[in-house]
Formats: sequence, structure tokens, C-alpha cells
Amino acid sequence: MTVQKKTLLIGGNGFIGKSLINKLIASGRSVSIVARSNFDDAFSEAVFYKGDFGDDEFIHPLIKSHDEIIHLAYASVPNTSFENPLLDLQQNLTPSVQLFLETAKQNKKLLLVSSGGTVYGEATKLPVSENHPKHPISPYGLTKLTLENYAYLYGITHGLDYRIVRPSNPYGIGQVPFRGQGFVATAVAAAKLKQPINIFGKTGTIRDYIYIDDLASGILSALLYGKQSEIYNIGFGVGLSNLDVVEALNNILKSYQCSLAVEHVAERPFDVKANILDASKLTNETNWSPQTGFTEGLKLVVASVFDH
Amino acid sequence: MTVQKKTLLIGGNGFIGKSLINKLIASGRSVSIVARSNFDDAFSEAVFYKGDFGDDEFIHPLIKSHDEIIHLAYASVPNTSFENPLLDLQQNLTPSVQLFLETAKQNKKLLLVSSGGTVYGEATKLPVSENHPKHPISPYGLTKLTLENYAYLYGITHGLDYRIVRPSNPYGIGQVPFRGQGFVATAVAAAKLKQPINIFGKTGTIRDYIYIDDLASGILSALLYGKQSEIYNIGFGVGLSNLDVVEALNNILKSYQCSLAVEHVAERPFDVKANILDASKLTNETNWSPQTGFTEGLKLVVASVFDH
Repeated sequence: MTVQKKTLLIGGNGFIGKSLINKLIASGRSVSIVARSNFDDAFSEAVFYKGDFGDDEFIHPLIKSHDEIIHLAYASVPNTSFENPLLDLQQNLTPSVQLFLETAKQNKKLLLVSSGGTVYGEATKLPVSENHPKHPISPYGLTKLTLENYAYLYGITHGLDYRIVRPSNPYGIGQVPFRGQGFVATAVAAAKLKQPINIFGKTGTIRDYIYIDDLASGILSALLYGKQSEIYNIGFGVGLSNLDVVEALNNILKSYQCSLAVEHVAERPFDVKANILDASKLTNETNWSPQTGFTEGLKLVVASVFDH
Repeated sequence: MTVQKKTLLIGGNGFIGKSLINKLIASGRSVSIVARSNFDDAFSEAVFYKGDFGDDEFIHPLIKSHDEIIHLAYASVPNTSFENPLLDLQQNLTPSVQLFLETAKQNKKLLLVSSGGTVYGEATKLPVSENHPKHPISPYGLTKLTLENYAYLYGITHGLDYRIVRPSNPYGIGQVPFRGQGFVATAVAAAKLKQPINIFGKTGTIRDYIYIDDLASGILSALLYGKQSEIYNIGFGVGLSNLDVVEALNNILKSYQCSLAVEHVAERPFDVKANILDASKLTNETNWSPQTGFTEGLKLVVASVFDH
């Protein structure tokens, strides 16, 4: 008889977290969620703890009562980090370093969710593999990279048992639109509202869109089968510009007698022009592979928004 | 007629700063020092401003009234950063990021003094050139690397005009002993006090010792002739173990009828085993080269301590 693993999901109340909960439970785990906002999924089997993971008295007993920690919490997204880089570094670095130290001290296993879309900066070669140079151009990507560096350091000096994943851009049912992150969700919501969508520059940025279920199964694969101290890209491996996304969306929207218009605005200095991830390391080591093509995934999102 | 350049040296009251002041003045510059502690060189021609460079109201007018900023201030050394990593990140990152933003806003030139001894982590190839992977194993090295990353980011997004230098281990007359940094100063002071010196492990760590005048002239060369956005190692390029240093010192101490004993203690997890820098990039681009061999420099230090 194997004992059921207990997984603590910090920042589990977001788009990625909610999808991951189901995968973790399906893998036979008991799952607890830590978040600062109220947990809004009444049907989940996960146990919810409301609080700030930077609060030692709150988080230490939770680390103690679980086997594995998945760190998904982040207080910023690229554009908010650009507007307030000091808040980005103060709110993200200090509590995470505390978490790493306590996780090492208690000999628990850590999975850190970093950012494949931002830690590399402007790619010198596409698709980007894990050993590509890291030169982030957004404070968000910079603090994510800094957390990776702290995980490495505490692996060496304190024996921290960690793995890191670097996801590309997730999309899927339930992603909240108009948050400055999540182009697909915003595009579909704008179409529904009959509003045009902003494209930064001529065609917008090129991104590697991964369906949320595929990302969640990739994170689970890295947790289960990834090697200690290793870093894994998780992406679909295909680059689409914002205009490509709008075109694919308008093809689907024809059957809804609807279409999305675009408005071109100036490029943003903190957006890399193109990001496509090479996720072959995770595939080779864990047998994971993404299952949902972009058109298929996009149809699911459109249906979830338009068929209600 | 050329207008005299005005240089602001932040953290100019330390070992490197004091040597650099003289080089800057000799190059025809007018020099101002910012430090939190009282400036203790009454004979210096530099103007002294006592204050915290993280205080916007204090530092902004000083940035405005100078042409170039040299950022030498650091609130930690490797062993204090290991004991208190949160203090290291809070005291060093926030004020430096503020400084970078203000320097970019005011279109001034920045020279950031990073750390060639710690940002690379354990070397995979010696000597280490600037493009060697960066995997620091001390929080000190990690926050230094993070500041380099912020300088790069603000170079891209805000046009920050910066250069970075990565010094190896400086030694020379006036270095304060028993501070957990500066093995040569501590060894000479211990000999004078007839105390043994601690060696971490069998032979101690291997370091690239550079005489302080050579480091100061290297920093000046990078400021004058280094290219925007570039990073330069500054080292002598020879690796000496702690035992090598003690042996060289004992050779010199014979004429003083004195010798230094060693005590072996456990290795520290945050010390890289060996660090030797390849500084050929700075030499090739600026004609700088170090002038003082280790035995010669060590004799100067011994004389300064024993002949008084």
C-alpha cells in the first residue's frame, strides 16, 4: 500500500492552479490550496487555506503537513511589473526565498513555476531550449529568473529538492480576460462584447500558446518524473502572432456570425518579439506531450464563451 | 577646452572607493563621494555627502549635478549574505533599482561594480570569461547578478547608459582585516598579532588576487573606454590557494623574524572552490593591464603593517 501524497499548491486560485488541482487529484494526491483571495471553486475536493505565504506562522505548519510544495503564486504580471518594479521585487522575492529556506529545512519537495515566455528575453535562436541565455527585459521575467537562481543556490548550500518548469503562454476555458496577460481570453471576450482588440505593433508579438490542460499535465509530469535540480520548458512549440490568433478566431467566429476587429497601437518595450519553446527535454524525460492543437483549443474557448 | 567631468562615487568610503578616488582625480575629474559612514580621508580632494543612496530626495539632486555615477555601495559580503539572505536582497536590490531608473531618466552614465568572484558560481572552465554561465552559490553573488540583469533590462527599456565590471579579489594597503572578506589583509594582520589563520578545507579556496591599484585603474579604464552595455572582468589571471598565500607571506615574513600558522576548519557551502578571471576583454578593448605581481604587492602590504 502506498501512502497518499499531500500536495500544497501555493497560489492555487488562479487559472493554472485550478486546472492543476484536478490533475493532482486524478493522480491520487490529496491537495491543499493557499491563496490570499477567497477560493471560488465550491466543487473542488481541495482543502483551502486563506492567507499570505510570506507569513511564516501561517505557512510553516502547512509545509510541515505536506510532502510537496508547488509554488505558483505571483504578485505581478509583465505590464504591472514594468510600471512598479520595486513592488514586483519586494512582493515576489522575499516571501519566495523564505519559502525555499523553510522547504529545504523541512526536507520537502519543491516545484517552482517560472516563466518560459519572459526569462529568456529576446531569443537569439528559436525554438528556445532551457540552456538559451537568460536576458529578461521585463521586471516580471527578471524576478522569475532570480527565483530560479535562489532555488539553485539553496539546492547547493541547503540541499533544496527542487524542479523548475518554464511554461509558455497558456490559454483555455476559464482564463479571465482584460488582465494584461492572456491574449486569447481577451480576444474572445472582446469579440463577444463586439469591441476591437489592441495589437501592439504591426502583427503583435509571436507567442507559443499552450492549452491549459496540456500545461497542467506538463507540470504534473515534471513533479512526478522530472529530475531534482532540473529545469523544463513546457510549450506547444508553434509560434503564432497576435494577428494569427485573430485570424484563427475569426474563422471560428463565422459560424457565430461574429468577427473581431483589431486596432494597432505602439509596441511595448518589455515585450519580447517572439517566444517559442523547445519542450523536448520534458517529453524525452517524462513522456509528456501536448495533446490539444491551437484551433481545437480555441474552439473550446469560443464555445465556452459564446454558447452561454 | 574640455569641461571637467563630475563623477559621483556611491559607496566611495570603502577599500576600492578610496583607491578609485585618486585615479579619478588624476584623470582630471571632480569627484564626489556618497556613503552612510563618515568619510575618514581628511586629505582627499573629493567632496563628501553623507547619506543613504536609497533615499530619493538625497540622491536625485546629486545624480543631476554629476555626469557619471559609479555604484560601489553594497550592504553585505558573502558570509553575511548567507546568514541573512533577506537583508541582502532588501538592502541591495531596491535602492539600486531606484538608482538605475533615476540615472536612466536623467541620461547619466553608470558604471556598476559587480563581483567576478561570485556571480559565476563554481567554474566549469578556468580562467572564466565574461560569457561563462552564471550560477552563484552565495546570496551576495546572486544579488550582484540580479543587479546586472536589472541594468541590462533598463538598458533595453529605458536606454540606461551602463557598463559593468566584475572584479576578482582585491588586496592592498589599507584593506581592513577580519571582515570575512579580504584574505590577504586578514592573514597579514593575524601574523602581526601572532594569531593563526583559519583555512576552510585542506588548502582553502583558489582565488585570483588583484592589487588594489590595478583594480582601480581597471575600473577607470572601463569607465573611460569600455563600451556601453558591456561587461568586463578585472583580474590578474593567476589562481592562488589560501595555503599558497600563506606560503608567499611566510617567505616575506622571514626577514621580520615572524611566521603565520594555519588552522584548518570545515569548508563553507557558499565558497566556490576556484575562481580565476580572464580579463583579456578589458585589456583588448582599453589597453589596461595589471602591473603588480602578487609577491610585489604582498611585500607592500606587509611593509605597511610591519614597518609601523
